[in-house]
Amino acid sequence: MWSCLFPVSGGFVNRDPLTRRTFVNLVGRAGGAGAAYGTLTAMGLLPVPPPYAGPPKLAQQGGGNGVKVAVIGAGISGMVAALELSAAHYEVRVFEAQDRVGGRNRTYRGGDVINETGSTQRVTWDRDPDLYFNAGPSRLPHHHKAILGYCRDLGVPLQVMVNENRHAFLHDAAAFGGRPEHARRVVNDTRGAVAELAARAIGAGLDQRLSEEDLAIVRDFVRAYGELDASYRYRGSSKAGYAEPPGGPTPGRPLEPLDLVDIAKGGMLPLAMLFGDIYEMQAPILEPTGGMDAIARAFYRRTRRFITLNAQVTQLRRLGSGARVTWRDRTTQRVRTWDADHVIVTVPLTVVGAIDTDFSPKVKAAVDVGAGGYQHAVKVAFEAKRRWWEEDYGIYGGISWTSRDITQMWYPSAGIHGRKGILLGAYFWLGGRGPVYSAMTPEQRVAVALADGEALFPGYRDLVHRPATVAWKNVPFQGGAWSAWDEDTRRDAYSVLLPPDGPYWFAGEHMSHLNSWQEGAIRATHHVLERIQERVSAQRTGSDPD
Amino acid sequence: MWSCLFPVSGGFVNRDPLTRRTFVNLVGRAGGAGAAYGTLTAMGLLPVPPPYAGPPKLAQQGGGNGVKVAVIGAGISGMVAALELSAAHYEVRVFEAQDRVGGRNRTYRGGDVINETGSTQRVTWDRDPDLYFNAGPSRLPHHHKAILGYCRDLGVPLQVMVNENRHAFLHDAAAFGGRPEHARRVVNDTRGAVAELAARAIGAGLDQRLSEEDLAIVRDFVRAYGELDASYRYRGSSKAGYAEPPGGPTPGRPLEPLDLVDIAKGGMLPLAMLFGDIYEMQAPILEPTGGMDAIARAFYRRTRRFITLNAQVTQLRRLGSGARVTWRDRTTQRVRTWDADHVIVTVPLTVVGAIDTDFSPKVKAAVDVGAGGYQHAVKVAFEAKRRWWEEDYGIYGGISWTSRDITQMWYPSAGIHGRKGILLGAYFWLGGRGPVYSAMTPEQRVAVALADGEALFPGYRDLVHRPATVAWKNVPFQGGAWSAWDEDTRRDAYSVLLPPDGPYWFAGEHMSHLNSWQEGAIRATHHVLERIQERVSAQRTGSDPD
Repeated sequence: MWSCLFPVSGGFVNRDPLTRRTFVNLVGRAGGAGAAYGTLTAMGLLPVPPPYAGPPKLAQQGGGNGVKVAVIGAGISGMVAALELSAAHYEVRVFEAQDRVGGRNRTYRGGDVINETGSTQRVTWDRDPDLYFNAGPSRLPHHHKAILGYCRDLGVPLQVMVNENRHAFLHDAAAFGGRPEHARRVVNDTRGAVAELAARAIGAGLDQRLSEEDLAIVRDFVRAYGELDASYRYRGSSKAGYAEPPGGPTPGRPLEPLDLVDIAKGGMLPLAMLFGDIYEMQAPILEPTGGMDAIARAFYRRTRRFITLNAQVTQLRRLGSGARVTWRDRTTQRVRTWDADHVIVTVPLTVVGAIDTDFSPKVKAAVDVGAGGYQHAVKVAFEAKRRWWEEDYGIYGGISWTSRDITQMWYPSAGIHGRKGILLGAYFWLGGRGPVYSAMTPEQRVAVALADGEALFPGYRDLVHRPATVAWKNVPFQGGAWSAWDEDTRRDAYSVLLPPDGPYWFAGEHMSHLNSWQEGAIRATHHVLERIQERVSAQRTGSDPD
Repeated sequence: MWSCLFPVSGGFVNRDPLTRRTFVNLVGRAGGAGAAYGTLTAMGLLPVPPPYAGPPKLAQQGGGNGVKVAVIGAGISGMVAALELSAAHYEVRVFEAQDRVGGRNRTYRGGDVINETGSTQRVTWDRDPDLYFNAGPSRLPHHHKAILGYCRDLGVPLQVMVNENRHAFLHDAAAFGGRPEHARRVVNDTRGAVAELAARAIGAGLDQRLSEEDLAIVRDFVRAYGELDASYRYRGSSKAGYAEPPGGPTPGRPLEPLDLVDIAKGGMLPLAMLFGDIYEMQAPILEPTGGMDAIARAFYRRTRRFITLNAQVTQLRRLGSGARVTWRDRTTQRVRTWDADHVIVTVPLTVVGAIDTDFSPKVKAAVDVGAGGYQHAVKVAFEAKRRWWEEDYGIYGGISWTSRDITQMWYPSAGIHGRKGILLGAYFWLGGRGPVYSAMTPEQRVAVALADGEALFPGYRDLVHRPATVAWKNVPFQGGAWSAWDEDTRRDAYSVLLPPDGPYWFAGEHMSHLNSWQEGAIRATHHVLERIQERVSAQRTGSDPD
């Protein structure tokens, strides 16, 4: 699903007196480096970035006027570079090793072939606009302004995606005797039980900082929030669902509330039940109609004349203040060169090492560190002969969770009530499962997906067929699903790759603070384009921005 | 938005020993009559209704074979009756006073005319598939199996509707100094602050019923749930949003957490922030592509030969074991009669009184009581020259809330990034506002909508134009938005209308426990059809089901 799943939780102390230093350290501990950095900017100790205001206005700043830029990789990042640079009169060429554009923006349909190192699968699904599988990014958060802006400008039709479904299942082997529960029940009974505890704290006067009047207001609020009764007890709520739903002439019978201890035993439940409130996961989530690769195709329509497919860059060498790009045509095997003033490397760090470069030793080391930190997520999709999740279970889109290895099951948001559907049957990434399942054959992954699916849906293996699986680690020219910096590597390696190494610049999702997201790829690319423009403009006026 | 907004909150005592009687009384107090009824069925004191298993199988139970049924009203209820009865070989006629079908299932588009008693508006919007306004029902909850089943069977294309948007605004004049806040901030900071209080209660050992081990598990859970720090304090979360969102090379700076006392002062906030967790409001919500009246049109295609439009029923009289229906053709003014074995009255109780009937005095009184309890919701929609909520605010679908009279602002879920859009700019119903705004002229309602909209969006009155407003109370042959029984009227009046009054049966949303919902209309109608079939079958075999 392509996201930072464990969000930074930073924040501010607004109650207790603290020194500035204690404050920063405390936030750093609680929230990771990002929070500490943010705090520093808030305190005026670091510059504050402006809010996103559209693609860089390169032409308005003088443009390129023939400055030559080579771009390695025609993923979203590379095509954004081509689009913006060409519009600002740069001479841009994009070298793409594969016979297609989009990179990890990839949608599979019937007739496609999935090539991993060591295996080949043919996707045998029916050909139908609704039968597709986004193997890479699958969501457009509503606040990802850069990619949404391009979708608007390029005319990519968007639709609403169900990311959270209160009727989907949460299954944790350690909770509820291993019984899958509807999300609505877990989410709403948790709120009620926690509110009951909070009301008890208020009733016991545990917060002496509040006035009597404020205490009364807060207590009333907590009672409404948790739907507590007159004695501040949570006794269940229709929000949690019904043992018998209301019908025509019959009222409903709500379920008995789940026990908080039982909920608390499910180690995966805090993540799963609050998933839809993770910043990047919050409703609404959008998706291109018919598959995520509509975005790649839309960029390609505008940039194809700058892109050379099957062009594998084999060597980068400094040449004057620029660089020489050597590339091999993978169809003719001919080797060619192109000399550029700047080179933007947008391919994943996992595959940069395959290029013979004269990056500085420090940069080479940082590339290796970054490459070592990738997430190796693995997805398994199935075609279903009928949309049994809708017909039999009333599940329309969204995600079920399980503590078993498949972790998630995604139901399609489009094609409602259609004849068939594509189900994401497994998403191996949590708990180090990515590398484990990447090391398996497609058949082995599918076998686990079928077995684990039974935990959610008895008879599952007869309900799905025609599997298709992608382990990004094994996909040539990708080598991983998304970058995942930690506090140390962000500081020691990422920061090394941010400034240019002579003529070499790095862009792509890995060069952003929105790792795994197409938005991150675009924003990181915009940043590089702005810096290149600054340099070009400065060289023109004789000043030096660095 | 067509819903029961203050849901029944019932539940069960599962901790303390109680007598059966105390138990029932207590649940009744906490949750209203519905909960008590549900409890009685759960305890085996009332029959338990079976789960929904599709439309009634009338033909399998013998069908009608020429039994004549008159249906008053061609709303969803009347057309369901026509569809099912005709399929089971009943002779069915539907008398519809208006020149259209659908009843309150009504979608307005450019060129339409809105007639209220005392005013006429022409809708001057551009004609475009995405520019429509659902004046009545607007949502299909995912668990409304009956209407979703008909959508599937009748081929009504459905799409996902954004009901809850974490980026929409919650505005309560009493909270945050009157500043609109994004929903994500209120929702997530509330959870954190309440969890912090709960952790304090746990830490103080306030729950002596738990073992030490369970206490530790619950405390860990509450910490994860509220994203509390190591000292169980809530210091903010990225879930609540960023003061500066993360960009390319820059991490984000989370917002400072809102103060719980400030949140608690917003009297509307518990409803607004938990709106998406009300049972009928939970994601996913579906909607017919292009407008809710796609459902009415789909029913009409299958039932039009049984429906007489412009046929105003003026009199009902018992005739033998059946009844004589007298109706006036509103185009020719000719008066005609039709004699039926059964009459199903599906029109709102607000307009039943206009028919000269020989209902029993008890039924007539119950009709009057029911008619007096209707909600008189009023909507105001605008066309916008551009989709500024998307372009300027990043709001894609969903609902903003305000404590001002307009209560809600709805953004369209379809037509994303299109040229124009239709915005629901006001939904007057809470706090007795329905009758107040129904008594206003359209111009007066629009003036309030424009003024209140400024509280959410400065410059609002220049961003929208071409208003269209509907006060259901004033719409001929409707007389109200939806029925709203309370505990007393449900017991004293609704129950009187449930059994047949000789040949007369009542159906429609008001005859269900899903008031305001099309699902309720369908389920109530199914119930009546099943009872009619029982009677017909019994008469055939000589037995008596009553």
